[in-house]
Amino acid sequence: MVITAAIAGASGYAGAEIARLLLAHPEVEIGALTASGNAGVRMGDLAPHLQPLADRILQPTDAQTLAGHDVVFLALPHGHSAAIAQQLPDDVTIIDCGADFRLDDEQDWTDYYDTPFAGTWPYGLPELVKAGGGKHRDDLVGARHVSVPGCYPTAVSLALAPGLAAGVIEPQDIVVVAASGTSGAGRSAKPHLIGAEVMGAMSPYGVGGGHRHTPEIRRNLSVAAGAYASVSFTPTLAPMPRGILATTTARVVPGTDAATVRAAWESAYADEPCVHLLPEGQWPHTGSVLGSNLVHIQVTLDERSGRVIAIAAEDNLTKGTAGAAVQSMNLALGLPETTGLPMTGVAP
Amino acid sequence: MVITAAIAGASGYAGAEIARLLLAHPEVEIGALTASGNAGVRMGDLAPHLQPLADRILQPTDAQTLAGHDVVFLALPHGHSAAIAQQLPDDVTIIDCGADFRLDDEQDWTDYYDTPFAGTWPYGLPELVKAGGGKHRDDLVGARHVSVPGCYPTAVSLALAPGLAAGVIEPQDIVVVAASGTSGAGRSAKPHLIGAEVMGAMSPYGVGGGHRHTPEIRRNLSVAAGAYASVSFTPTLAPMPRGILATTTARVVPGTDAATVRAAWESAYADEPCVHLLPEGQWPHTGSVLGSNLVHIQVTLDERSGRVIAIAAEDNLTKGTAGAAVQSMNLALGLPETTGLPMTGVAP
Amino acid sequence: MVITAAIAGASGYAGAEIARLLLAHPEVEIGALTASGNAGVRMGDLAPHLQPLADRILQPTDAQTLAGHDVVFLALPHGHSAAIAQQLPDDVTIIDCGADFRLDDEQDWTDYYDTPFAGTWPYGLPELVKAGGGKHRDDLVGARHVSVPGCYPTAVSLALAPGLAAGVIEPQDIVVVAASGTSGAGRSAKPHLIGAEVMGAMSPYGVGGGHRHTPEIRRNLSVAAGAYASVSFTPTLAPMPRGILATTTARVVPGTDAATVRAAWESAYADEPCVHLLPEGQWPHTGSVLGSNLVHIQVTLDERSGRVIAIAAEDNLTKGTAGAAVQSMNLALGLPETTGLPMTGVAP
Amino acid sequence: MVITAAIAGASGYAGAEIARLLLAHPEVEIGALTASGNAGVRMGDLAPHLQPLADRILQPTDAQTLAGHDVVFLALPHGHSAAIAQQLPDDVTIIDCGADFRLDDEQDWTDYYDTPFAGTWPYGLPELVKAGGGKHRDDLVGARHVSVPGCYPTAVSLALAPGLAAGVIEPQDIVVVAASGTSGAGRSAKPHLIGAEVMGAMSPYGVGGGHRHTPEIRRNLSVAAGAYASVSFTPTLAPMPRGILATTTARVVPGTDAATVRAAWESAYADEPCVHLLPEGQWPHTGSVLGSNLVHIQVTLDERSGRVIAIAAEDNLTKGTAGAAVQSMNLALGLPETTGLPMTGVAP
Repeated sequence: MVITAAIAGASGYAGAEIARLLLAHPEVEIGALTASGNAGVRMGDLAPHLQPLADRILQPTDAQTLAGHDVVFLALPHGHSAAIAQQLPDDVTIIDCGADFRLDDEQDWTDYYDTPFAGTWPYGLPELVKAGGGKHRDDLVGARHVSVPGCYPTAVSLALAPGLAAGVIEPQDIVVVAASGTSGAGRSAKPHLIGAEVMGAMSPYGVGGGHRHTPEIRRNLSVAAGAYASVSFTPTLAPMPRGILATTTARVVPGTDAATVRAAWESAYADEPCVHLLPEGQWPHTGSVLGSNLVHIQVTLDERSGRVIAIAAEDNLTKGTAGAAVQSMNLALGLPETTGLPMTGVAP
Repeated sequence: MVITAAIAGASGYAGAEIARLLLAHPEVEIGALTASGNAGVRMGDLAPHLQPLADRILQPTDAQTLAGHDVVFLALPHGHSAAIAQQLPDDVTIIDCGADFRLDDEQDWTDYYDTPFAGTWPYGLPELVKAGGGKHRDDLVGARHVSVPGCYPTAVSLALAPGLAAGVIEPQDIVVVAASGTSGAGRSAKPHLIGAEVMGAMSPYGVGGGHRHTPEIRRNLSVAAGAYASVSFTPTLAPMPRGILATTTARVVPGTDAATVRAAWESAYADEPCVHLLPEGQWPHTGSVLGSNLVHIQVTLDERSGRVIAIAAEDNLTKGTAGAAVQSMNLALGLPETTGLPMTGVAP
Repeated sequence: MVITAAIAGASGYAGAEIARLLLAHPEVEIGALTASGNAGVRMGDLAPHLQPLADRILQPTDAQTLAGHDVVFLALPHGHSAAIAQQLPDDVTIIDCGADFRLDDEQDWTDYYDTPFAGTWPYGLPELVKAGGGKHRDDLVGARHVSVPGCYPTAVSLALAPGLAAGVIEPQDIVVVAASGTSGAGRSAKPHLIGAEVMGAMSPYGVGGGHRHTPEIRRNLSVAAGAYASVSFTPTLAPMPRGILATTTARVVPGTDAATVRAAWESAYADEPCVHLLPEGQWPHTGSVLGSNLVHIQVTLDERSGRVIAIAAEDNLTKGTAGAAVQSMNLALGLPETTGLPMTGVAP
Repeated sequence: MVITAAIAGASGYAGAEIARLLLAHPEVEIGALTASGNAGVRMGDLAPHLQPLADRILQPTDAQTLAGHDVVFLALPHGHSAAIAQQLPDDVTIIDCGADFRLDDEQDWTDYYDTPFAGTWPYGLPELVKAGGGKHRDDLVGARHVSVPGCYPTAVSLALAPGLAAGVIEPQDIVVVAASGTSGAGRSAKPHLIGAEVMGAMSPYGVGGGHRHTPEIRRNLSVAAGAYASVSFTPTLAPMPRGILATTTARVVPGTDAATVRAAWESAYADEPCVHLLPEGQWPHTGSVLGSNLVHIQVTLDERSGRVIAIAAEDNLTKGTAGAAVQSMNLALGLPETTGLPMTGVAP
């Protein structure tokens, strides 16, 4: 049985990446590809890397066009998903790559976004542990609606959650600095994103808790810790198209040794197909996971500073967005979780 | 029936790329992975992007280790393939990614390489036209031995051959300038290849006909033209890991109009799954074919200068090496030609 | 005596680079900095690399603001320079970095630009040889008005002119392929110029003679040859912020040997402080001239193809634009030609 | 009076950068350029960007060659400086860019380096504040010997010291994550530094306190705080040739408001020519200080996490190494501090 899928926002980086993955998915047939400003444009003009879709014409993004598919992927600016979702038939599986349904605290939403709070959907990060056992995967099996995580929260949360859930690191004073490729800023042409500005240079942004992924990270880590997690999060822009390297640190719980620290991460990810704790001594490299649905993680205890450092590398567009979307769809529809997902990176 | 394949030279860029493609090939099971200096090393230490092979240990490169597979891919420095090939059983399909069997002129070999001439094998560029009709594909179906093209010759030959075979451009004064990502220089650490030297800069090398791909390009174009092709070839090193952009020009045959020029390329590639003539006005972009087995081509006639300019973009490691190897294997073994090959690029 | 200089268009890449060079010029004091859309903005917000100018406020670009300076640099979009120039007092030295006064053939101007032909000013490329002897420097000493060359024409013309003027290469079938850093496309935010699109990829544009620098290159080479020069020019966009690598080829005049070829270039540039013919065997590297007013050139004869290949590297913003502007100002005002100009690159 | 200066290690990145700066220094004449493995090589082959030195031949690094200059810059691997220094006449000013004389704690030296402890020289970071008032500048005026800081310690220490000295942030739990361009790893060809590995990717190294700059950072911050500073330091490798972006965080002293935080940094750097606190809201960008002797800093208080985040951008080779060396020489010799130093960046 073939699953039909529509993609709303197919001309953006997230939407096009979903299309790339679905083209390789053995059970899915791509239906409508929609856009707003780019409706009417030939897909090959906007995404020449998707050769098999080159002659498709982008349709307008509306419920009518999207209805009639088994699955609808929403890759829209925040604030647009709820209205579309309400108009779709009940039996359509909706995978939302926007922020609209990620937060569970209305105040957080109001503080960071400028639209009405839309609610909370199951969170599309299956591997993420919760305090007291269990993972978010449990909420995704058979779900009708899924909220795909933000790209930074995926890397940061997977890096730290095992230690919080196992009680080996403290949630009170977490510090995160992450570097992202510039595709994370989307496809719109802004002066500070043109090539001459970003090549050969690094710069921070949203410093001091201003980035919209901050409350999402805090939520995930609090759920993992079973207690309020305090997080200082600084994102930086790196001169590469794709990739996130998240360097996360937290104070070790006094008396915890290095072996206990490592054991927490090992047990969390021993059976995960998409999240790999690297062998001791090998550190993540964003290039190694480029284009893949994998996250590479390493962790160590710096006894002198009393901090655990956990570092995760992912591709912000694949596992950080579109791969998580397809992985969530697989779980929602009862398919094997990694069906159609790229399990190798494109390196060098 | 599962096909077993060994890769000799699996720790280099070409060998690792073959492994990446074979991991996604539905009919192939990867057998021995061998290396010379890296024998005994864990694959995950050298190629962490190939997660499913991470715990494999590289074996030494010798005939004994390679024998017993249906297919052996050789990704070795030039001069090593003939000796290995002689020691392998007759029923092993050998796909050689080195230069050893690419040339058909012993003098050319002697001029450009410093080892004895080993002979000529069917040339693994199925889409390449020949004068008088036919393509190299004809020689590959059922072949026991295949010689995979060099990365530059693939892009350059595919760009120009249709015009030569159709008689719309002249073979006497071809000029080619090509830019390649630095993975084309292989994985060995040389001072001029370290990141600080190559990032943010471009430089030529092998200027004046000195590059070893020059005679191979000349051979291909001569076969396409049915006459001796004179080629000025200048390769340049570009600040990117992968990708070749080949800008090729030739004098138009007097009296030929733009439509006739375009028709030559259209008819050559109309039915090719891996080589695409882009719609008029759209030019190739190496990023669009990154990681794929595709070549994007565009051609135009500059009436004022009397030259046809044809430009091709490819990924030097995929279609330029490993993809061509797997595509050739498919043809040699009678599988559908594009089985297991990536038909979309990883962009942006 | 201090020379006062105003810069019109100081918020663009060319204008800001002029400001960078003038800050290091011992005889010049920077006066008005003007802009159109950015008038009223603090310079530090637009060009934080120019620390000494950070607190300057950009003024509107009009004749009133620019008048009263000894020198006015115009770094404006084409079509704007003539009107401003007419309104400035006669004793103001005007250095125009736009295209408006570069061409001497009205038809060429009309074919490539969409504004009225404004005339021709002395051409700010002092080192460029002319047929019959002499260099453009002769026209610049004491000039009131100077037209600064385009960035591609500088590299291409300096690469080829010595051979044309000396009669060792033929002007009939010149082929040029050049790669430029993305700052050459200016500072405006266009979708195809955002970082994620340009990093890690190369692409051509303006293929088939469509680039506006084509007639300027043809003019320069014709002046050098004393005969009409036919040029096929293909520019490409390279993943680097700055730098042009121009690969130029021309048919050698039959019977000319390699030593004669080299002698032509040696004699043209033996005494030039800013243009260096590298020692035999060493090829230009754009990184080596980054931020400098230097051009590195190498030339060779490929006997087999019958073509001379000459390659030039420059920084498109420095020698390719702002450095040539300051060098021309020095000549116009009777200062030592290289006063204040950076004679070393910033490498690696 | 002309000052003569020799550079030991002139073929490495640090040594060549010193040469670049000295070429623009109005009071200095460059004398001997020495190397070990590269002795006898033409400078133009190794550093073609230093055109005025192209025909110089590198001499062997020994005391005899270096003696007879007013100033000797040592840009050698650690462990080599003490022996050379002992053999030089007493009246030679020695500026050491190696680590040998940076630390004041023999145990720290022994823990991180594998050679005998050589002692401690005045620390070449004039702008760095000390607890109780004063800056390291005080120790440099008229000094005979100077130890130039490491590239990371410069950025990190300048970012944090004002808050520690003013008592607005706590020294007990400092967390630093810094990204460096690959020139920071020096010029030796190592497999993980070749272009194809580093372009388009980020990776950490020396995680968990293992980087040799860790004790130097701890020392500087302890001197600033007047108390032991605990530091978690994670360096990462970024895909750019030059530049360091250091993101530093420390817990704010309870009860301190944002204005008091900012005032601490403002008063520390108000009169510094080379260290600039950017206007509120503007964050550092490594591209803006490329090639310059400037450090750009911004600081903010994240009230929710209780942490101050201070971020510094520098060019690791200029202010991070060679610029600090020349600035220190100026102070040591009684010249105006910024003589000959580049005070603008090369951007974009």
